Amino acid sequence: MACRDGQTLSALVEKARKLSFEGKVANYIPALQKESPDHLSCAIAYPEGDCFSAGDINKKFTLQSISKIITLALVLMDYGPERVFHRVGMEPTGDPFNSIIKLETSSKAKPLNPMINAGALAVTSMIKGSSAEEKVDYIMNFVKKLTNEPEIDYCEEVAISEFTTSFLNRSLCFYMKGDGVIHGNVEEIMEVYTKQCAIRLNCLQLARVGLVFAMDGRNPLTDEQVMPKEVARICKTFMVTCGMYNASGEFAIRIGIPAKSGVSGGIMGSVPGRMGIGIFGPALNEVGNSHTGLKLLELLQEKYDLSMF
Amino acid sequence: MACRDGQTLSALVEKARKLSFEGKVANYIPALQKESPDHLSCAIAYPEGDCFSAGDINKKFTLQSISKIITLALVLMDYGPERVFHRVGMEPTGDPFNSIIKLETSSKAKPLNPMINAGALAVTSMIKGSSAEEKVDYIMNFVKKLTNEPEIDYCEEVAISEFTTSFLNRSLCFYMKGDGVIHGNVEEIMEVYTKQCAIRLNCLQLARVGLVFAMDGRNPLTDEQVMPKEVARICKTFMVTCGMYNASGEFAIRIGIPAKSGVSGGIMGSVPGRMGIGIFGPALNEVGNSHTGLKLLELLQEKYDLSMF
Amino acid sequence: MACRDGQTLSALVEKARKLSFEGKVANYIPALQKESPDHLSCAIAYPEGDCFSAGDINKKFTLQSISKIITLALVLMDYGPERVFHRVGMEPTGDPFNSIIKLETSSKAKPLNPMINAGALAVTSMIKGSSAEEKVDYIMNFVKKLTNEPEIDYCEEVAISEFTTSFLNRSLCFYMKGDGVIHGNVEEIMEVYTKQCAIRLNCLQLARVGLVFAMDGRNPLTDEQVMPKEVARICKTFMVTCGMYNASGEFAIRIGIPAKSGVSGGIMGSVPGRMGIGIFGPALNEVGNSHTGLKLLELLQEKYDLSMF
Amino acid sequence: MACRDGQTLSALVEKARKLSFEGKVANYIPALQKESPDHLSCAIAYPEGDCFSAGDINKKFTLQSISKIITLALVLMDYGPERVFHRVGMEPTGDPFNSIIKLETSSKAKPLNPMINAGALAVTSMIKGSSAEEKVDYIMNFVKKLTNEPEIDYCEEVAISEFTTSFLNRSLCFYMKGDGVIHGNVEEIMEVYTKQCAIRLNCLQLARVGLVFAMDGRNPLTDEQVMPKEVARICKTFMVTCGMYNASGEFAIRIGIPAKSGVSGGIMGSVPGRMGIGIFGPALNEVGNSHTGLKLLELLQEKYDLSMF
Repeated sequence: MACRDGQTLSALVEKARKLSFEGKVANYIPALQKESPDHLSCAIAYPEGDCFSAGDINKKFTLQSISKIITLALVLMDYGPERVFHRVGMEPTGDPFNSIIKLETSSKAKPLNPMINAGALAVTSMIKGSSAEEKVDYIMNFVKKLTNEPEIDYCEEVAISEFTTSFLNRSLCFYMKGDGVIHGNVEEIMEVYTKQCAIRLNCLQLARVGLVFAMDGRNPLTDEQVMPKEVARICKTFMVTCGMYNASGEFAIRIGIPAKSGVSGGIMGSVPGRMGIGIFGPALNEVGNSHTGLKLLELLQEKYDLSMF
Repeated sequence: MACRDGQTLSALVEKARKLSFEGKVANYIPALQKESPDHLSCAIAYPEGDCFSAGDINKKFTLQSISKIITLALVLMDYGPERVFHRVGMEPTGDPFNSIIKLETSSKAKPLNPMINAGALAVTSMIKGSSAEEKVDYIMNFVKKLTNEPEIDYCEEVAISEFTTSFLNRSLCFYMKGDGVIHGNVEEIMEVYTKQCAIRLNCLQLARVGLVFAMDGRNPLTDEQVMPKEVARICKTFMVTCGMYNASGEFAIRIGIPAKSGVSGGIMGSVPGRMGIGIFGPALNEVGNSHTGLKLLELLQEKYDLSMF
Repeated sequence: MACRDGQTLSALVEKARKLSFEGKVANYIPALQKESPDHLSCAIAYPEGDCFSAGDINKKFTLQSISKIITLALVLMDYGPERVFHRVGMEPTGDPFNSIIKLETSSKAKPLNPMINAGALAVTSMIKGSSAEEKVDYIMNFVKKLTNEPEIDYCEEVAISEFTTSFLNRSLCFYMKGDGVIHGNVEEIMEVYTKQCAIRLNCLQLARVGLVFAMDGRNPLTDEQVMPKEVARICKTFMVTCGMYNASGEFAIRIGIPAKSGVSGGIMGSVPGRMGIGIFGPALNEVGNSHTGLKLLELLQEKYDLSMF
Repeated sequence: MACRDGQTLSALVEKARKLSFEGKVANYIPALQKESPDHLSCAIAYPEGDCFSAGDINKKFTLQSISKIITLALVLMDYGPERVFHRVGMEPTGDPFNSIIKLETSSKAKPLNPMINAGALAVTSMIKGSSAEEKVDYIMNFVKKLTNEPEIDYCEEVAISEFTTSFLNRSLCFYMKGDGVIHGNVEEIMEVYTKQCAIRLNCLQLARVGLVFAMDGRNPLTDEQVMPKEVARICKTFMVTCGMYNASGEFAIRIGIPAKSGVSGGIMGSVPGRMGIGIFGPALNEVGNSHTGLKLLELLQEKYDLSMF
């Protein structure tokens, strides 16, 4: 079904764009730096199948940290919560997403939660498959089910660029390997991880992923239960407690919906029972969340009373 | 209105008591140590005015950290969110509730959130009144409104005991005073804080406080809007992200309701739009939450599908 | 004996003054801020009783952290190393002198060493006397013996100013009191500590203190053994491993003599068996050591090959 | 020259062995675990060429962390202090030798000093050579000069064992590579590092290395200036401030000589101008220093008054 252009949504997108002019596009890899800081696109997908969009919704962007919630859902389905939480914790942290300190100071060596890099890498190390290629395919197929889109790819340029420069993530992997938290080959984990981060969607496709979580794991487009209700519930909980880097607490207070952001400027929102939201605004604030995207979500929350609290 | 004895609730309370035998009663002050580890009482208050209880609901206990959510509501009402969040942050932390480290390592000296001791002390330092006595009265009057109970007191013995021994809390106060986060006299702040922690309720009264937050700030017993909806919403958000010490993330995943616990063994729950819950079970687990109380909430969540996620 | 003006020393003082123009006078209390950043005075005291000086050697300054080595010597004499090291550690730390973090993270709650503020406060808490006044007198009498100077005082203005504003030091005290590392009244400890820090000497008197340590505890002016050799040895060791705040390692490599600095701009040096050095240069570098003082010591070390290593 | 069996030394060795029965042999790799906890051998080399020994001095052991002082001397000779200290700091740290925390918390990303693992790895990354093999040869040739021993090897078994399991050291390397502190291939650095740690000496050969540092870089056996005086001085300073893991401060106070220990149970001592000491006692205390070796050094210090302070 085509996505109608929503006038109200377009107006909010314009308003958000005007209100925010301070964000900066991520520059740690060249591929991300190319994006225009002015870009802002948004789509909202409803359970009934209709959707609204504003801005250039054909524009694709890489998932980056948003992929963490997708691989978490996969391993929760494959291993069950108990085995997953044996490897990665459930607690939010006041530290930056890429911090290594808690791995040393915690009595349990496992990373505090699956949304920080250490935890996401531990999750990726559990993805099923006999090779990096198989594991990436396995993730891609899951994204196809979530989006109901047969053609999903990842951006080779971004993946290679991150694979070549992700020394801190390798450091996290080796630290956890030393503690027995992750097993397997670090370079293979890095290959899978950088490719999952480089998966490309547009904001409509992202809204559909958010909708599946909002609908307790059922994809309303296909009526397929893509993941058990419990898995969707756990994922939404993490989106609330630690989905927006270390501004998650503030986001919960100001906006109050399960959401996950990525350093590319994407934000996926899941309003329980009501809607999925996909936003792409590459200008970031200082903690790494989309600056214009946050503004837009604030306007949406005010208008439609989205907060769970 | 009298609280009926609920058979179903009594059965769950019995089940919870049987399933948990590992908790330990807090022993850092003599007054808390006197409680029986076997005690478990619970009350559930509904918006329509009826309520169910199980166990000895006349048993009173001190609020301890549960009082943090009450003083937070007060200062949010008196100063507005912006001025409060100028002094205390909104982010959960992976550190213990009494940790001082982040005060030194954070670029902003303010405590990460109002549920850890540092943040709660900063909140208490903002309570209105020209003396410790006036400030304590001010808090007590608010608790009377929340519970619709004209006779609320605090336990002098517990208050004095904690006032005499709370050296770490004084350390937190002076650290923040050095950073300009709190002003005023530290001994006065300590007096108010230890008295707010020593306020005594039974589990039915606590359930009624939880109900006010659940009903967006309206007290259904009096139909009075005790606090603005926004204040209730902010408080519930903190209860989800950091209400259960540093097991808040796990609690959100396993149970998924706004809740706040205290080291006395009390837990207050607020299921949005549905009910307030008051529990007293003095046997604690290793992070300081009521061991049997958690078990009971797990059984309640399974039976009534309480999770917000 | 009068101190002769040394031409060579004067030339080095002038050279040091010219080479350094970046330091800043401490400004955390008004009394310290009054000093001229251009001032630099120095005295060198030899075991034979002669001495050389340069600059205005009548200029007095407060000891600040230099007093830590004096109180350490006192408690080592009164209690013996074993009992002192039961309360305070022997290890250098990479953290700033006023850091509180290690008190929380170390398995042993005691401060890492007696040269950081926490450790120095623990030492001061052990000073003998039945009142703050007696304890201060006890320290003053020891300084009189070390300097062979009957008239030593402390600066009331500096002492009061620091007593009124030292919230972080109170925080350290209460933290350690909570852990049972220090006992007694915190305000009394603070009174003694701020007064010991405010003891006033000129650089010649300071050089004489340094000489006592250099001569294994014997005061060559009086031929009195002011402290046992072992106490002098322990003090000199701390001066090497942690005497110059967290630039002690660099100082050991570049200059290599036992030395202790204070935030007033004083530096006391003890070249074993050879000389005591007293320097006053109030312009500080970013870690809190006298900027011109360091430069002067570097020139002295080059000229006279003072390094122990 | 053959090393005479010293009766006095033998008696001290026996005494040290009897006084200490609590140490444990390192067990993180099988090759180290094979050693007998009762073994204790010692040699003292004097500038005049004579030497004394006690215990089975033909027993070889791997250098482990003692090699850090040797590679530090090499890079100081090749690059000069300024360039080396651009990559690695000069400050002791209160953290464990393998801690990663300070890499994240320090404003400068460089490791605090070259004696902790992070700093030693940064030093090894600077060793000259176009391949791991060349770099290892370069180090080995330097050790041959220091010991005046043409046949020095490393233990292949230990090197491989550590190379295969050193995940934490890889983590440190990648962290520093991410911060631009080290360049080059991490696996190559790990190969060189694990081989330098596996270099095998007996205690007489180790005493001779210590003697070169004690004699300001001159090898008295060959009269060759193996390293500049300044390099020897810097190395001895690090041996005092951080040579004995995080018991360096206590060692400086109790014994007071430049020394470096390794987890194999070796200790190298350098008493300035007087002697070099080599000890092998594989039973370790809880911080990783030879338990019997420390006891022996304490007895030696008491008997011969070795402390510099």
